[in-house]
Amino acid sequence: MYPDSLNKLIQTFKYLPGIGEKSAERFAFSILDLDDDQVDLFVNSLKNVKLNIRHCTKCNTLTENDICYICSDIDRDNNKLCVVEDSKSVFLFEKNGVFKGKYHVLDGLISPLDGINPEDIGLEKLIDRIHNEHFDEIIFAFKPSIEGETTSLYIKKILNDLNIKITRLANGVPIGAEIEYIDSLTLERALNDRKEIE
Amino acid sequence: MYPDSLNKLIQTFKYLPGIGEKSAERFAFSILDLDDDQVDLFVNSLKNVKLNIRHCTKCNTLTENDICYICSDIDRDNNKLCVVEDSKSVFLFEKNGVFKGKYHVLDGLISPLDGINPEDIGLEKLIDRIHNEHFDEIIFAFKPSIEGETTSLYIKKILNDLNIKITRLANGVPIGAEIEYIDSLTLERALNDRKEIE
Repeated sequence: MYPDSLNKLIQTFKYLPGIGEKSAERFAFSILDLDDDQVDLFVNSLKNVKLNIRHCTKCNTLTENDICYICSDIDRDNNKLCVVEDSKSVFLFEKNGVFKGKYHVLDGLISPLDGINPEDIGLEKLIDRIHNEHFDEIIFAFKPSIEGETTSLYIKKILNDLNIKITRLANGVPIGAEIEYIDSLTLERALNDRKEIE
Repeated sequence: MYPDSLNKLIQTFKYLPGIGEKSAERFAFSILDLDDDQVDLFVNSLKNVKLNIRHCTKCNTLTENDICYICSDIDRDNNKLCVVEDSKSVFLFEKNGVFKGKYHVLDGLISPLDGINPEDIGLEKLIDRIHNEHFDEIIFAFKPSIEGETTSLYIKKILNDLNIKITRLANGVPIGAEIEYIDSLTLERALNDRKEIE
């Protein structure tokens, strides 16, 4: 029904997460309204991202260089290592500027049900790094889920004999949330992990 | 904060309608997970749409040929002309297969407040076409709005001496809607345009 090239563009927009037929159609039509320059920019950004983006050889985060800007930064705290499940988490922490240590990016979390086993998420590289560099704290910043807990426990077990402090992000009531909308597991955690007011 | 080429891709995704920073980031990260083949397909569809899509010289709808497949179709009813505000409307009608006549696509609707005057929406071509071909009914299928009404009335005035039946889509309660959620203007139209049950 649509002209062939318009139809092909609609189909490719459906590669994007959460995009179905209707939104893909809307996006494709909007491309027709863009200037040639804007479409060129679009085309080039897609090409360049695939060409230029690689993983930092040290911490595995996304970068355009061999070593990312965080690993190259001599002003950061080399004693703390924050282990995250993907590069997006690194950018989120950096956006907020709340962490001044180093990162290590896993290739996801252990999830046997999805066929993702410990050997699939790049743990060897992390363990090697922890053995070679001298961290005094490893912080797990995974999403609160069975996969997150499994991955934390698995790594903690391997590192047990190293005598390093191992922590995870606090779970609890998010700032600004209404108590009545908090699920019971979060509420239980928030209660168990309660802090004394000083 | 993001690598340069990733950042550029995020910015270009924001050209898409309704896409802000968060969704653009999500889309850009998803591109990194695509195969090279899929990204090539994406790049080529964007290029091809700009290269190949043009307007039918007869009815102004989007096509890859000089004359679109509807105008070329000898089996359609040449007596009825459905005038729409954009090509998307043509595809919507065709998807539903409810109309078997011909179309004419305007370049939008008259909207003096947005600086869109009668001479900006390609009316001359429509009027010429109506004079040259022999339609016995012109159907306006514009969105129910001040712009739609203005455009209908403006064209009707020009065609007044031609003695052609001029109609518009019915307005009323959409199928499946709850009466309590219908706005008062729609309800008034639905009441005024009520049909006798036969």
